[in-house]
Amino acid sequence: MELPNQAPAATLVFRTLLAHGPLTRAEIGRRTGLSSGAVTKAATPLLDDGWIAELGRPAGDRMTGRPATLIAVRAERAGFLGVKVTADELIGVRTDLTATSLAARRAELDSRDVGSVVRAIGAMVEKLVSASGTHEPEVHGLGVTISGDVDRQTGAVHHSPFLNWQGVPLAQLVEEATGLPTVIENDVRALTVAEQWFGAGAEVRSFALVTIGAGIGCGLSIDGHLVAGAHGVSGEIGHLPIGGGDRVCTCGNVGCVEAIASTQAIVEQVRQATGDPRLSIGQAVRLAHNGDPAANEVFARAGHVLGLAIASVANLVGPERIIISGEGVGSYDLFAEQIRQTFAAQAFGAAAECELIVRPLPFEEWARGGAAVAARELVTPERRSRGPKSLPAKSRN
Amino acid sequence: MELPNQAPAATLVFRTLLAHGPLTRAEIGRRTGLSSGAVTKAATPLLDDGWIAELGRPAGDRMTGRPATLIAVRAERAGFLGVKVTADELIGVRTDLTATSLAARRAELDSRDVGSVVRAIGAMVEKLVSASGTHEPEVHGLGVTISGDVDRQTGAVHHSPFLNWQGVPLAQLVEEATGLPTVIENDVRALTVAEQWFGAGAEVRSFALVTIGAGIGCGLSIDGHLVAGAHGVSGEIGHLPIGGGDRVCTCGNVGCVEAIASTQAIVEQVRQATGDPRLSIGQAVRLAHNGDPAANEVFARAGHVLGLAIASVANLVGPERIIISGEGVGSYDLFAEQIRQTFAAQAFGAAAECELIVRPLPFEEWARGGAAVAARELVTPERRSRGPKSLPAKSRN
Repeated sequence: MELPNQAPAATLVFRTLLAHGPLTRAEIGRRTGLSSGAVTKAATPLLDDGWIAELGRPAGDRMTGRPATLIAVRAERAGFLGVKVTADELIGVRTDLTATSLAARRAELDSRDVGSVVRAIGAMVEKLVSASGTHEPEVHGLGVTISGDVDRQTGAVHHSPFLNWQGVPLAQLVEEATGLPTVIENDVRALTVAEQWFGAGAEVRSFALVTIGAGIGCGLSIDGHLVAGAHGVSGEIGHLPIGGGDRVCTCGNVGCVEAIASTQAIVEQVRQATGDPRLSIGQAVRLAHNGDPAANEVFARAGHVLGLAIASVANLVGPERIIISGEGVGSYDLFAEQIRQTFAAQAFGAAAECELIVRPLPFEEWARGGAAVAARELVTPERRSRGPKSLPAKSRN
Repeated sequence: MELPNQAPAATLVFRTLLAHGPLTRAEIGRRTGLSSGAVTKAATPLLDDGWIAELGRPAGDRMTGRPATLIAVRAERAGFLGVKVTADELIGVRTDLTATSLAARRAELDSRDVGSVVRAIGAMVEKLVSASGTHEPEVHGLGVTISGDVDRQTGAVHHSPFLNWQGVPLAQLVEEATGLPTVIENDVRALTVAEQWFGAGAEVRSFALVTIGAGIGCGLSIDGHLVAGAHGVSGEIGHLPIGGGDRVCTCGNVGCVEAIASTQAIVEQVRQATGDPRLSIGQAVRLAHNGDPAANEVFARAGHVLGLAIASVANLVGPERIIISGEGVGSYDLFAEQIRQTFAAQAFGAAAECELIVRPLPFEEWARGGAAVAARELVTPERRSRGPKSLPAKSRN
């Protein structure tokens, strides 16, 4: 599926409407830098083919001169699927074009074997598609998201530590299993796309999304561009060497943020402090909530290291806002004070003005990230080539 | 001074030619995504007004069909000045439109007082302008660069630790003193602009410029965009908290990169190790070159911390290339081995593929950064508003 007009101006108009919601033609022109003639020329085939529609006049329009009609993306024009793969389950959603969830499902994984996971994705896709009502949009594409070093352009998972995968051509395998055009993306980057277009990143020019939990990751969006990393790696704040101490990280280095502040690292440290080798994360959180000094100290140290990591992002990249999310946010009260204190102390000069917001996003929201990435293929269809990186496509207008 | 046609397409064409040198119309279209008609429409007023010119046919052109004429920026169309302000001297250059140096001067600063520095810049500007030959381009603007938290848009130096300045409206003061349109920028960011357009950053999609010396800084260019920081701060790798130990940084925190690896920090540590309280950096370098174990250890530790900082940039932002420069590069042989070892160990996965290159850039090159920033005002003249940040300017076509 493709937009009827892939000229840069049409893509820009469609992208602007996706990211910013209903706008007048004049406002589209202001945001894109296109002339009013160019906006009209770009919009006409999109209107004719049902991708966008004119809404009624905006409230307060005074009817002087030509009425200013609002134009919006037609959310029902196309459906997408998003699937997040974790170490032990799949979380899937079916959405419309604006990544609004229409249906959601979870399925446990029996095995982390590539074949089993691909079959499980196939079964999940079948259920999500067959559950569509007759008036719901046809599914046009699928986005699968996964933690690790994932190359959207070639469709390969280079390395996913949680699944113990290396060099898996996942996009191709899933396309063969489902028949759907499939794009894969790192899970944190996909969630960043969803936040950029339809979430807490929509109204700012730049933001970072820091996720805390089993892994500690970061998505970066600067001037509306997702920072992908020239070599496929970016946002790896879990491996900033700011933790101190002698704990060895899963990557083999000492002092990584994840070695101190990941869920597993917290559990191990509380086990060590309490002498209970079978303690779970739930029990560690309860101990800390009940005021156990050893458990509190582990959470405070994790909070300190997270504060350093967040300040590092602010000092290095300078985003307008940092969104803190991930399953670790469930016990954010145990980190919060220490994160804010350390951030304030370590942020350099005006970097301290960066706004920190905490936003719990369940795994269904992460799966929406897959759908957002699939929808984004409409306007940045680079992946299709699956070849070496190329410059922007030639104009057809 | 303004381009005759500030429509987005004209700006894009001019910017592309500035950054990439002579190109055919077809190549301009490919790189900008503009149609051939749009390229011609955008180029015509720029050609008429002498900003760009058609060169002869490119070598190897086979004369089939319409000959492919190369178009290039006319470097001699406009001159610019760049001045870098350090704690004790000014370094100034006069350049053409492509920031190629035509003349250079240095002047010692008697005082770091704002009025004295502004007068010294005025005197430097007068000398650089009066030294112009009759066939040299008229000077159209000035870029002043300075270490610290510098706001290009408002023209104010919020904070410059080396000069002990706070809240100085420098652009306005220099404009009043010189009568030249003046833009100010952080010195590392300005050098990054010069590298992006005319240096080792011109042929890559993203790069970081890491400068080591009195301060330790970093400029970031991602997909052709300079990362400025939403709150005016970015690239502060000198204040990443990865140094360990108990040395207190000039910013008041412990463990910053600058507390271990800045020139001053190295001198202090070698003084401490040798018991000689008056040792200079030159003497410290000589000691290390002569194999003094204590001095070597200080440089090795600095190299290790620099390697961690460079790996942090690679892990977080994922640039294609990292350029290492700054006056500290003069004794790079003392750091090199440790930087490469630590970088290789700490870079996460494919981030290790990031290319590291060392590039000695004397202060005259930094001053060229000021001229490049002034020239950039032609194509991104946001600063002129000196008001709150605005969206892209309205189209006039």
